[in-house]
Amino acid sequence: MITCIGFDADDTLWQNETFFRLTEARFIDLLGGDPGLTDRLHEAEKRNLGHYGFGVKGFMLSMIETAIEATEGQVGAPVIAEIMAMGREMLRHPIHLLPGAEEVVRALAQDHRVIVITKGDLLDQERKLAQSGLGDLFHGVEIVSDKTPETYARAFARHGAGAETAMMVGNSLKSDVIPALQAGAWGVHVPHALTWAYEHAEPPLAAPRFRVINSLLDLPNLVNGLFTYNR
Amino acid sequence: MITCIGFDADDTLWQNETFFRLTEARFIDLLGGDPGLTDRLHEAEKRNLGHYGFGVKGFMLSMIETAIEATEGQVGAPVIAEIMAMGREMLRHPIHLLPGAEEVVRALAQDHRVIVITKGDLLDQERKLAQSGLGDLFHGVEIVSDKTPETYARAFARHGAGAETAMMVGNSLKSDVIPALQAGAWGVHVPHALTWAYEHAEPPLAAPRFRVINSLLDLPNLVNGLFTYNR
Repeated sequence: MITCIGFDADDTLWQNETFFRLTEARFIDLLGGDPGLTDRLHEAEKRNLGHYGFGVKGFMLSMIETAIEATEGQVGAPVIAEIMAMGREMLRHPIHLLPGAEEVVRALAQDHRVIVITKGDLLDQERKLAQSGLGDLFHGVEIVSDKTPETYARAFARHGAGAETAMMVGNSLKSDVIPALQAGAWGVHVPHALTWAYEHAEPPLAAPRFRVINSLLDLPNLVNGLFTYNR
Repeated sequence: MITCIGFDADDTLWQNETFFRLTEARFIDLLGGDPGLTDRLHEAEKRNLGHYGFGVKGFMLSMIETAIEATEGQVGAPVIAEIMAMGREMLRHPIHLLPGAEEVVRALAQDHRVIVITKGDLLDQERKLAQSGLGDLFHGVEIVSDKTPETYARAFARHGAGAETAMMVGNSLKSDVIPALQAGAWGVHVPHALTWAYEHAEPPLAAPRFRVINSLLDLPNLVNGLFTYNR
């Protein structure tokens, strides 16, 4: 029986990667259109994760760094200022809920403890949750610096009865599904058309608690099915 | 009786502001030495708090913004790169514990739930706690986007028996002491020689649960004194 259901936020409950992709495209345009900049930017982001962690502020700093490196220090300050304006725009972007987010969370909250487990910048994730209108539906919110098996063990112990009776739902196999499975929980993948290269991983097909659904709208049936099956 | 004691981290358990001041001084040198830049930088930080929240990454972005504005867009990319290098250095700075931090937390942890309540960037605060060697002494860690009365009410409900039987200890009247008092907890001020202008506030002298100590080393006596008095 599932007592606690954890939801990833970005690209699980609401659109997020699309704003990064749009900003990336504007960034490349701004620097003259070389498509090779995408790879350089992704490399900078990856290299800087250990310094900056996940989130928009680190992305802004990686864009600035890439602009300086790719132009061999020739980029002008007005371009840097424009990059910062683009980043601040991301920090204000409106929330577009994904199909089913509200009704599914509301329905499952009746019989389960539902929580959000998300990484990124603290203030930005809180802002998005507040603007999503979903905040009051959740019994708890965990904004974390990374998603490891320990992250899930701790969150499900804090908000539920431990990982054994918990389920994690998200669009990232690498961050949402695989470490939750390793912690002993169910791991439900809801693929999103856009997923950051960093979050790619092989599907853990052999894991007995791994499930895939096409949309959050399929989640209540999955949860009820597991429950029936386990009786 | 006090069941739960919350500690601020930066400039309460370990040095922090000193690294900001050193970086500020280097920033001003880098831009030619105009001391008026300090005010401009502080204004940018304050203006950007709502976008970036607290922490080093926002400070880096505010330094870059100030450099661009103060030079009317003439600052060169190598200077921006140097600002970013200074920021990354802050994210790696070694931890210097303040006097008594370890022994006082260790002693109070025997009879109380001791927790850290800190704002700033998630990953950076986790890194500092890990490097401080104090991590295992604490029963809980709350890294928060801001410190309001609700923050304290929630943290002390989660980790203790509520704010009524809790105490918050920190160097900032504005963030650590006053909102904790407003939540109904004890608020203990441990002044630090360097405190960011943003954190200044009038001492809440009329509040019956307000206390001031010169050093963390005075905290056990204060806690025991309160306990004796309340009997």
